[in-house]
Amino acid sequence: MELTEQAHWFVLAGDHLIWLDDAGRIPHCTRQALPSSWQALAFEAFDLWDDAPCYLHDLGEGESLFVGASPAPGQWSPLRQLMVAGDEEGFRLGGRAWQLATFRRSHKFCGECGAPMTPKRGEWAQGCHQGHMAYPRISPCIIVAVRRGSQLLLGAHRRHYQADDPMFTVLAGFVEAGENLEQCVAREVFEESGIRVGNIRYVGSQPWPFPHSLMMGFIAEYQGGEIRLQEEELVAADFFELDALPRIPPHGTIARRLIELCREPL
Amino acid sequence: MELTEQAHWFVLAGDHLIWLDDAGRIPHCTRQALPSSWQALAFEAFDLWDDAPCYLHDLGEGESLFVGASPAPGQWSPLRQLMVAGDEEGFRLGGRAWQLATFRRSHKFCGECGAPMTPKRGEWAQGCHQGHMAYPRISPCIIVAVRRGSQLLLGAHRRHYQADDPMFTVLAGFVEAGENLEQCVAREVFEESGIRVGNIRYVGSQPWPFPHSLMMGFIAEYQGGEIRLQEEELVAADFFELDALPRIPPHGTIARRLIELCREPL
Repeated sequence: MELTEQAHWFVLAGDHLIWLDDAGRIPHCTRQALPSSWQALAFEAFDLWDDAPCYLHDLGEGESLFVGASPAPGQWSPLRQLMVAGDEEGFRLGGRAWQLATFRRSHKFCGECGAPMTPKRGEWAQGCHQGHMAYPRISPCIIVAVRRGSQLLLGAHRRHYQADDPMFTVLAGFVEAGENLEQCVAREVFEESGIRVGNIRYVGSQPWPFPHSLMMGFIAEYQGGEIRLQEEELVAADFFELDALPRIPPHGTIARRLIELCREPL
Repeated sequence: MELTEQAHWFVLAGDHLIWLDDAGRIPHCTRQALPSSWQALAFEAFDLWDDAPCYLHDLGEGESLFVGASPAPGQWSPLRQLMVAGDEEGFRLGGRAWQLATFRRSHKFCGECGAPMTPKRGEWAQGCHQGHMAYPRISPCIIVAVRRGSQLLLGAHRRHYQADDPMFTVLAGFVEAGENLEQCVAREVFEESGIRVGNIRYVGSQPWPFPHSLMMGFIAEYQGGEIRLQEEELVAADFFELDALPRIPPHGTIARRLIELCREPL
């Protein structure tokens, strides 16, 4: 890489922090324009953005690695900030960078033999001396808006629950070995809420890099049952009128997209 | 577990071998009716089948572990045999058993710190003494039938290629970090064949336990480009008339299901 090449720089640290420039965007500049203490870092190319390369460096988990190392105009921001700011491609590529960094962090040793693993050249893979290979993990999840006439089933999660202003969202869960997406939708909704659903339709998908989920969004229809909470997961769940919803997830999430789709006139 | 309880027994060995009874099915009997050398094995419950528990034991990879250990009427069979025989639920649960066994085999050591991992009680998870947890890996893949009028794009894979009687199938590939399913479909088709596609519609999904894929099936329309093979992957690729297809994958695969859907009158 030349010092004068224009590139996008994804510098990561801590738990999903990413370095953004003064305008709150992924830095787009030459290597020379980076903070001087970063110029000797080993960067890895991982993608293209408008024909310019994307370079990645993970400073690691320890706070001490980056506190004080803020010489340039800019700031450490949560990755999520890019989504909130509506920077769709920045969030997508920042998420990709974070998933690759998470992969390196979590595959330092071989799961089969315990030996150290090293990066394989020219591929996002880690290999051990016995030849076992690992690739970035992507965890498939379903997320589903359950409709009953003019109502929508929403739940408030125990994690991040704010009693004074709870956020409600559609139900979601990880796919298990041996089930297809539609079986997973029916199982998750029943386990979390006691509700049976049918007419399960795929809507779209979104990578969700916290840490490596792939959300597959569905709309389904209520078929039967009374609400019975899975209390380890949910604090509350109910059917809400579509024109009188509680606080819901922000734009940019597939949860919000599913909810908005249900609000559209049929 | 009681000796007289009726259960389904999933005994695994080698590379995707499974023990089937004389009728070619997963044994459904009491523990007492198992081969005597297996009665002392540690079995793990992993699911229900018609309200009877499913028990799993993995004899491991070494051939020596099971050669000669065939005292009961029955046989070691490739897992795939259940699919070929049309035993849909047996194949699904056998695939689930195999994915769980593969998970245990491939997560004996912690990827973060290299320490031994042990099974967590009451959950399909492996944990180390530092508290790092791992769950069964499921690798999302897309598989796509590309249509051009009355024609279908099919490729012959380099792996398992038989020059005298090649099998052709729809294109497929693993989802990468940071892309959604539709982006993955467009990327994979272009990389493997040089063809651009649009109007990408989800059809359905199938777990594919070799070793832990989740196939998500799509139909897409040809939009442009000339066939240009990715030669590491494919030996040949072409558009075939739907009423004059070459040899294609067997019933029971999502590949076949996508092809049959394209053959139906619109």
